[in-house]
Amino acid sequence: MAERISRNTFIMDKPPSVHSYAAIVGKKEGDGPLGKHFDAVYQDTYFGQDSWEKAESEMLRLTVLKALEKGGLTKEDVNYMFAGDLLNQCTTTSYGLRDLEIPLLCVYGACSTMAESLLLASLMTDSGIGGNVAAVTSSHFCSAERQFRFPLSYGGIRTPTAQWTCTASGAAIVTPQSDIGPYIKGVTIGKIVDMGVCDANNMGAAMAPAAAYVIKTHLNDRGLTPEDFDLIITGDLGRVGGTLLIELLAEEGINISSRYKDCGTMMFDYENQDVHAGGSGCGCCASVLCGYFLDKVRSGEYKNILFCATGALMSTTITQQGESIPGISHAVHISHGKD
Amino acid sequence: MAERISRNTFIMDKPPSVHSYAAIVGKKEGDGPLGKHFDAVYQDTYFGQDSWEKAESEMLRLTVLKALEKGGLTKEDVNYMFAGDLLNQCTTTSYGLRDLEIPLLCVYGACSTMAESLLLASLMTDSGIGGNVAAVTSSHFCSAERQFRFPLSYGGIRTPTAQWTCTASGAAIVTPQSDIGPYIKGVTIGKIVDMGVCDANNMGAAMAPAAAYVIKTHLNDRGLTPEDFDLIITGDLGRVGGTLLIELLAEEGINISSRYKDCGTMMFDYENQDVHAGGSGCGCCASVLCGYFLDKVRSGEYKNILFCATGALMSTTITQQGESIPGISHAVHISHGKD
Repeated sequence: MAERISRNTFIMDKPPSVHSYAAIVGKKEGDGPLGKHFDAVYQDTYFGQDSWEKAESEMLRLTVLKALEKGGLTKEDVNYMFAGDLLNQCTTTSYGLRDLEIPLLCVYGACSTMAESLLLASLMTDSGIGGNVAAVTSSHFCSAERQFRFPLSYGGIRTPTAQWTCTASGAAIVTPQSDIGPYIKGVTIGKIVDMGVCDANNMGAAMAPAAAYVIKTHLNDRGLTPEDFDLIITGDLGRVGGTLLIELLAEEGINISSRYKDCGTMMFDYENQDVHAGGSGCGCCASVLCGYFLDKVRSGEYKNILFCATGALMSTTITQQGESIPGISHAVHISHGKD
Repeated sequence: MAERISRNTFIMDKPPSVHSYAAIVGKKEGDGPLGKHFDAVYQDTYFGQDSWEKAESEMLRLTVLKALEKGGLTKEDVNYMFAGDLLNQCTTTSYGLRDLEIPLLCVYGACSTMAESLLLASLMTDSGIGGNVAAVTSSHFCSAERQFRFPLSYGGIRTPTAQWTCTASGAAIVTPQSDIGPYIKGVTIGKIVDMGVCDANNMGAAMAPAAAYVIKTHLNDRGLTPEDFDLIITGDLGRVGGTLLIELLAEEGINISSRYKDCGTMMFDYENQDVHAGGSGCGCCASVLCGYFLDKVRSGEYKNILFCATGALMSTTITQQGESIPGISHAVHISHGKD
């Protein structure tokens, strides 16, 4: 059974296995530097459906099925799942996972969702009550853009700090510890941090303080330093937020600059893909984790990574009322070895 | 540590305590038959704020503070919380709980949210890793109506099957077992059930099959019958959905008619309050549970209740694309005694 060593940090007793995982992305993400690592790249933005919301739902469904297939599992082998997405009323989760008939606990953490679902799956499994639990999430450029910003056909000019919501989905199946790694060693539940950023086109700045909080808390609670990890990875701070995070932690005497990566920054080729401050969206870090990093931890290329998905808890309604954007981030320590 | 006795049903080992709880509602709910049971009734729909979203956020914040106060706890005593609401991007949760600085795991289950948050809090606590965990949710008629249906000033005519979103909020603090009850004995995680209902003004019918699934599963998994409970309580099926639920379970040979209650049906005076099929919203069953039922289980008037909050996972966007409304419901067994 996991041990709670502080208010909100937990160490696993018998680190659960990430038994299998999959990532599926759209064309632009497939054209990026990580393209060859994903399980599938769809050239059709609609994924064979007739709306963007249905497209995203289909992408999520396909990703869960791929993760099951890669792990030699059927949907009946998964006891329940933690899932969420960016669309209003978690449309993608409800419609994409509807036909799987797997008991569902839907979560919402904006772009922090993959860390939230993965930490809950891990805590449940390590507590001996979980069984096989899936953690899944997704985002889609077209469905997100019209919901959060402007209709695509409006052709609005994007600001330099704006990020590009990735069309991408990731799924991981967490099981009781087996010989199959990687393993989840510890987690920290984040809290809302709001430093007053009001610009919906500068989400990186809104999220960076929450990431700084959870990284500092995780390290301090466990008596670790950045050097204990090969990499400290944020979800989608992008170039603006990533720079800010390094500065915020440096002010606390924590230097992560030599081992810092951001999934949103890694997803695209800045020179040629016109994504401004980088990729974003729930599916961004979920697909980079499940398509790229988990393989590298499984192989031992990385021994220990700290995965900190970052969410901007913005609301289109209340942002228009002048409110600032709260951020949240949760941390998950993923390790090559069991011990 | 809780035991998973089937795919998705768990029995608590040392049933955790619902240490304290509170419910705050708006004027119309205060005027209803349960009015005197709530901790506070606000006559001001705006709760002193300048928008409905901020009003709902303030109501949620006040409810959490009231639950802490009633339990003799400070916000630092709560290790983390499970919370969610109906507004897009869970606005109420993000903004209402922002200043509390309690680590947060946000969930989304439409109107099933109180059962989802309560079952997660209970599983975490009974697993020995939880500490003190809050389960909170809310809804507000005005913020929900403009988001899901029409602007209030449009004055649209409501159909007979339409329900009235309650302005209400509930919060419960779950702690490791103490002498203070009631206690959480067992839970079942529900799954999405979609029988093809497409009418956003008939949510009761959309949710009833999901409630039937979770009640049947909970009873069968544990070898119990409806007679083992004083009451089986749904969230907000209203009069239409409630009748349907009784019929659906009767077809399975399960007769709940003598002990069935629905929070949405209990909240208002049908003769005089013009609410059509009954109350609804996350806050409806949360406030009826935390304002009315938990007191009655604590006192021993009811020994055992099965609380099944029900959610219509509808999306305004995809409903307009012709999709049906998936339902979900989770079950929580709340008991007067520990054993």
